[in-house]
Amino acid sequence: MVAHAPQPTDDRSWKTLEIQSILNILFTYPPVSFPNMGKGGGEYLMSTSDQQLGSVGIVEPKSVTLAHPPDPLRLVCGRTLGPITVAYETYGTLTPEKDNAIFILHALSGNAHVAGKYANEDRNIGWWDSMVGPGKAFDTDKYFMICANVIGSCSGTTGPSSINPETGRPYALSFPMITIEDMVQVHKRLMDHLGIERLLSVAGGSMGGMQALQFAVSYPDLVESAIPIATTARHSAQNIAFNEVGRQAIMADPNWREGNYYDLESPNRGLAIARMIGHITYLSDESMHQKFGRRLQERLQKGFKFDIDFQVESYLQYKGARFTERFDANSYLYISKALDYFDLTEGVSSLAERFRDLKARFLVISFSSDWLYPTYQAKEIVKALKANGLHVVFCEINSAYGHDAFLLETEQESRLIRDFLAHTYTAVRNRRMT
Amino acid sequence: MVAHAPQPTDDRSWKTLEIQSILNILFTYPPVSFPNMGKGGGEYLMSTSDQQLGSVGIVEPKSVTLAHPPDPLRLVCGRTLGPITVAYETYGTLTPEKDNAIFILHALSGNAHVAGKYANEDRNIGWWDSMVGPGKAFDTDKYFMICANVIGSCSGTTGPSSINPETGRPYALSFPMITIEDMVQVHKRLMDHLGIERLLSVAGGSMGGMQALQFAVSYPDLVESAIPIATTARHSAQNIAFNEVGRQAIMADPNWREGNYYDLESPNRGLAIARMIGHITYLSDESMHQKFGRRLQERLQKGFKFDIDFQVESYLQYKGARFTERFDANSYLYISKALDYFDLTEGVSSLAERFRDLKARFLVISFSSDWLYPTYQAKEIVKALKANGLHVVFCEINSAYGHDAFLLETEQESRLIRDFLAHTYTAVRNRRMT
Repeated sequence: MVAHAPQPTDDRSWKTLEIQSILNILFTYPPVSFPNMGKGGGEYLMSTSDQQLGSVGIVEPKSVTLAHPPDPLRLVCGRTLGPITVAYETYGTLTPEKDNAIFILHALSGNAHVAGKYANEDRNIGWWDSMVGPGKAFDTDKYFMICANVIGSCSGTTGPSSINPETGRPYALSFPMITIEDMVQVHKRLMDHLGIERLLSVAGGSMGGMQALQFAVSYPDLVESAIPIATTARHSAQNIAFNEVGRQAIMADPNWREGNYYDLESPNRGLAIARMIGHITYLSDESMHQKFGRRLQERLQKGFKFDIDFQVESYLQYKGARFTERFDANSYLYISKALDYFDLTEGVSSLAERFRDLKARFLVISFSSDWLYPTYQAKEIVKALKANGLHVVFCEINSAYGHDAFLLETEQESRLIRDFLAHTYTAVRNRRMT
Repeated sequence: MVAHAPQPTDDRSWKTLEIQSILNILFTYPPVSFPNMGKGGGEYLMSTSDQQLGSVGIVEPKSVTLAHPPDPLRLVCGRTLGPITVAYETYGTLTPEKDNAIFILHALSGNAHVAGKYANEDRNIGWWDSMVGPGKAFDTDKYFMICANVIGSCSGTTGPSSINPETGRPYALSFPMITIEDMVQVHKRLMDHLGIERLLSVAGGSMGGMQALQFAVSYPDLVESAIPIATTARHSAQNIAFNEVGRQAIMADPNWREGNYYDLESPNRGLAIARMIGHITYLSDESMHQKFGRRLQERLQKGFKFDIDFQVESYLQYKGARFTERFDANSYLYISKALDYFDLTEGVSSLAERFRDLKARFLVISFSSDWLYPTYQAKEIVKALKANGLHVVFCEINSAYGHDAFLLETEQESRLIRDFLAHTYTAVRNRRMT
């Protein structure tokens, strides 16, 4: 179901949003052409399955160190931090008007490597490659794409595993607590470094969606549009509960050593358990049934032991173990806490009040089987935006994939995003011409 | 919604079950009186809130040792086990006809102590005390109630923490893997010991509901009726996944020592984490929001540390820690595995085929916000029962309490169960008279 969200009067009015076909609506939009924007121009309304979409190809990991003293980052927790190294990537070309920059924001365990690969033989393809590239939803023939690893993480941006220049040792738990607001502060510093004053859009799923919302709140004058996907305006008690159990699993691992494990064995078993819990919340009952059911793993009958019987056990253990190869346990603690602290209603009477100064256009996307950030939470965002008279497109995509759908339902997302960005860009250019 | 389930023809036919008021239907049932059954007789249709319901009072924990060699229990896993000590309790009086015995079956962490207390000052009141007692749903003025701690557990019945008579040491992981079918086998041995040939009903929630179903399947001639509540005919991939993460948390605890911890420190931290995961699945998003929301625990603002910020964190840690005082980590492993192994469709083409020889009447109860064993799983049971022409009453009780509702929505459950048992008992007595 998809529609420009009407101003709701009561809960039943949401039923007016339940329109069956996405295509019927999207294809009635007047097509917008981009005559001077490269080979993808004019093709953006084509079905992704009908066209040959390109890759951004070989991309280059970039890095910059910002927030040098005496101008460190002032964090929400009250502490300061600097210098801060930021790992980022960019694809596409910034227009002379600098009006086509889009900031992609990643989820808990993500990184700056959204699209492409680092070498011809590289199998490490960007995490949203199907969404970002020539002719794709985030069309690199039209838009200048930016993505940066968030502060607190472990993929090139300063986090608890980074060396504290004052001590020459990893920060570990001396790293200050960070928030979604702090992540966005760092993104803003990167914009300054890149000489970009305004963003055509900010977009991301899950924690990326929270950053998109926070971007629009923190810098209402710098953001033309925002695309929060599979996300929420505040972590629920259930969200906090799952994260807390994951943190407990990490901190219960004897190798965690109050966070001081960088010269020693890592708390991989605890981190793997935290990731296994997370994975269950990323899938749905239905998708787990379809993917695994009760099928046994490489055996004909139950083993009557405590090793692996079922495929779902094997999958979770594999995913948990693989995660420890690329992620830092302390970063998991810090970022999961940032998620739990996220609450856009804090200090205001309502979410609508928080959104009072916003100017951006919004495309809000949720997924029917996402029980981590269910559709009702997306609707709370939409209602609060509409209460401020903002332009909002809302869509709940039918999907069995649960929360992971934001990484998997890229064809449906692409139709929505491609169109939304085209209209936003037209509006921006029209405004400048008048 | 409640109704005698019609034979469904397709998914939409379930809508015919959606009848708003439970009372309207229940109170049209002809009242059944029990002239010789004590002070509760004739009052069973009264609202529980309108009447003064009694307690079973001081009860006595009982114990018997069964399955002595050369007649040990033959387990599903292929091994034998015996002797087996069974902890159990009984309340009420068995009729001379021995036609009023009801077996209550407990959930994962339950025990035989369903109702009453062991001494006047005892604060350890039975886990379903609001359901079992004079004038209550399981009316001890009418029925003879039995409950036994399941095999593999740690509250008096033989389990991994029990002494293996062959070695003089706790079984630990040498204890054989047990199944729901094995639990029910032991219950049958207890029936034999008590001289009870037939049960008026078998009833329980969660794992207790699985035992109720298994009872009707294993001993179709011995069971007049069954009341499976908040349960499933087979553990789903998501159910298995949550249990597997809990097991991993226990086995990752260095104090677990491959199960050989009985002379040493217990793996309490791992067990607490397993219980925390379980607790999240027992509640609902809504009930957690109502109970905790984002309220902070004994502080005015976020701590920006990894200790407790939110009430929900405090609650889970408290529940996890308390659980380790009364439960054995190895028992958690064994019983959670028995849950995961439970699949009544194994070895048959359908659940309906599995139910082919059944004769019992059924009352199937689910709860609207139970996402551990959602209503669709209860409906699968009901459909398969109805496919065999069995008498089935099905009710989904509207509740925000999630899976825990089976322990909390006792007033609504009582109305259904009281009536269902009365009709079943009348049918049994009428059959004998004709």
